[in-house]
Amino acid sequence: MYSKLFSVTMAAAFCCSISQIKAQTNVADDFKPSPLNQPGQEYPQVNSQGYARFKIKAPQADSVKVSLGLGGRGGTRLIKGTDGYFTGTTEGPMDEGFHYYHLTVDGGTFNDPGTLNYYGSTRWESGIEIPARDQDFYALKNVPHGNVQQILFPSASTGTSRRAYVYTPPGYEKEKSKKYPVLYLQHGWGEDETAWSNQGRANLIMDNLIAEGKTKPFIIVMTYGMTNEVKFGGLRNFKVDNFQTVLTDELIPYVDANFRTVADRAHRAMGGLSMGGMETHAITLNKPDTFGYYALLSGGLYTPEETAGKAKPMLIFMSCGSRERPDGVKTAATNLKNAGYNAVSYVSENTGHEFQTWRRSLHELAPMLFTK
Amino acid sequence: MYSKLFSVTMAAAFCCSISQIKAQTNVADDFKPSPLNQPGQEYPQVNSQGYARFKIKAPQADSVKVSLGLGGRGGTRLIKGTDGYFTGTTEGPMDEGFHYYHLTVDGGTFNDPGTLNYYGSTRWESGIEIPARDQDFYALKNVPHGNVQQILFPSASTGTSRRAYVYTPPGYEKEKSKKYPVLYLQHGWGEDETAWSNQGRANLIMDNLIAEGKTKPFIIVMTYGMTNEVKFGGLRNFKVDNFQTVLTDELIPYVDANFRTVADRAHRAMGGLSMGGMETHAITLNKPDTFGYYALLSGGLYTPEETAGKAKPMLIFMSCGSRERPDGVKTAATNLKNAGYNAVSYVSENTGHEFQTWRRSLHELAPMLFTK
Repeated sequence: MYSKLFSVTMAAAFCCSISQIKAQTNVADDFKPSPLNQPGQEYPQVNSQGYARFKIKAPQADSVKVSLGLGGRGGTRLIKGTDGYFTGTTEGPMDEGFHYYHLTVDGGTFNDPGTLNYYGSTRWESGIEIPARDQDFYALKNVPHGNVQQILFPSASTGTSRRAYVYTPPGYEKEKSKKYPVLYLQHGWGEDETAWSNQGRANLIMDNLIAEGKTKPFIIVMTYGMTNEVKFGGLRNFKVDNFQTVLTDELIPYVDANFRTVADRAHRAMGGLSMGGMETHAITLNKPDTFGYYALLSGGLYTPEETAGKAKPMLIFMSCGSRERPDGVKTAATNLKNAGYNAVSYVSENTGHEFQTWRRSLHELAPMLFTK
Repeated sequence: MYSKLFSVTMAAAFCCSISQIKAQTNVADDFKPSPLNQPGQEYPQVNSQGYARFKIKAPQADSVKVSLGLGGRGGTRLIKGTDGYFTGTTEGPMDEGFHYYHLTVDGGTFNDPGTLNYYGSTRWESGIEIPARDQDFYALKNVPHGNVQQILFPSASTGTSRRAYVYTPPGYEKEKSKKYPVLYLQHGWGEDETAWSNQGRANLIMDNLIAEGKTKPFIIVMTYGMTNEVKFGGLRNFKVDNFQTVLTDELIPYVDANFRTVADRAHRAMGGLSMGGMETHAITLNKPDTFGYYALLSGGLYTPEETAGKAKPMLIFMSCGSRERPDGVKTAATNLKNAGYNAVSYVSENTGHEFQTWRRSLHELAPMLFTK
């Protein structure tokens, strides 16, 4: 079945430079509501090929556009019907997985009232999910579930209580004497501490891996990386100091005091996606005695020169989507391996700088953590 | 200071039947961004009198309306400026506290891109907060904080894993042998399990009360009351059976197995707001051996006839806003007291069927729970 779908998908993809009407003769008529719709909402919809279809009520509006569309083509313009609804379908199939988007209604930016919202691009955006062939690994299944809890930890350096989310694995409450390792997992620029469980489904990925016996149970801590607060004029100007203080001087001691953790570097990992990878890179190199496992998800590379002379990490994991720079992570891992490090690269097929890459990366990473 | 504000507010309120321009000569020029705005967003704004001001970019739109306004007056119509922004101020002051709203842009329903969203009216709506004189009791303060965690519990009766949020009080993780009472706390129609912590700030109300030594620490469990799934053709048609099964046969056993609870009726309370109060009323009367404390927040009344002959509740709490039917809860409490019950009524001043009433009600209720 998959090969059949694939051939249709590829055909459609190659047609995209010709007129929309022609291309859309190949569109399968099996549209269903996106899994991320608000309760009871029929639109947006997605089909088995990855096309997305939108329907927006705005009877007196002149123009409704959807920011989502094929890369660089400026989104999808919806067509107004006599019933007051604007409708339209993406010109081609979207990558599998999660996508942010928004509407432009008569020149103003609004969210699609049909969908749930997700924090990205420094705002709560509409979300849509293109069901993926491998969606099973992050599906909600009838397995024991861990919990995701909001904690508010005191932060003297920023003069407030700050929020983090903590995933505790299934059984955490019952096995009262067991202690767990911890992964500190960072979101990307424009996102916040909600991203990894909302968009990333980190908790379900872990629940499923644990149920299959594929990973050790561990805690995941996700907090706000302050990535939107810095004067972010390009990567060169980013300073990690403020966040490093919050993370290593405030959050980690709080987590170690309030959760049953094994509080040493061999049982503490740091990882992050995109901008969160840059933070991970900087902080692990600044604090090599704090973290024993490093992971960059579409978030840069380590070189043997950077890590030389410091406490040796048990694992360096680097990943990205195949539409990013897969050769970069592969070469970096090879260089690190040649220098004697336990380095692993992973490339997510047919995805770019987006959450499907990072869901898959976490799924690959988790079984390698805390195994030394 | 408060009396001064009050006189201005009242004057403005009495003016509201005359022209908007005239009324707004009384509007104080101290507008600030609503506390519920998305990070960095300047609008909507609120002033010290409770007026709300909106600013929406929609250069090509003809009409933008805000659903929020004085009761029954159909909201606030915004005026388009030459800069492409629509602006406007409510005709009069709003009640203190939290309000849901949405925009109508050229006939379509959208959220205000400036604000956070809250689930109400069976959709994620824009939220705005009118700072209240008594906002201190639900403010985020530098006190020990409890956690709010998402749990996914197996539900055979509905064939899925269902979500609940669990508030555990400060110290829950550290005091590993201590067991806690539990309040099951329900949202209203159109809302879901996120309402009590997002709109209601139940966790902060508890943190602050506990820090002041005014209440015993207890756990709060908030789950989806299925109130939006029933064919809800008026209260008469509501059947509580499905939700009662989820709550008493599935969720309570799960919570008792996975959290350190005292699993008896003397340490188990049920409360709810509006529709959640109706559920509380029905389920406590159906299962008098399960719950020892009952609370209806703008959610109906108990009569001595209903409770007669059943296990006697340790407390019956009934509340509402002064703009609802305060005499109803007062009379019901008197009748119950005369019949030998420990019944309490509470009326929130100058509020209606809205979250400020319910925040205050929880603040009043918590110290009375689990004291027998």
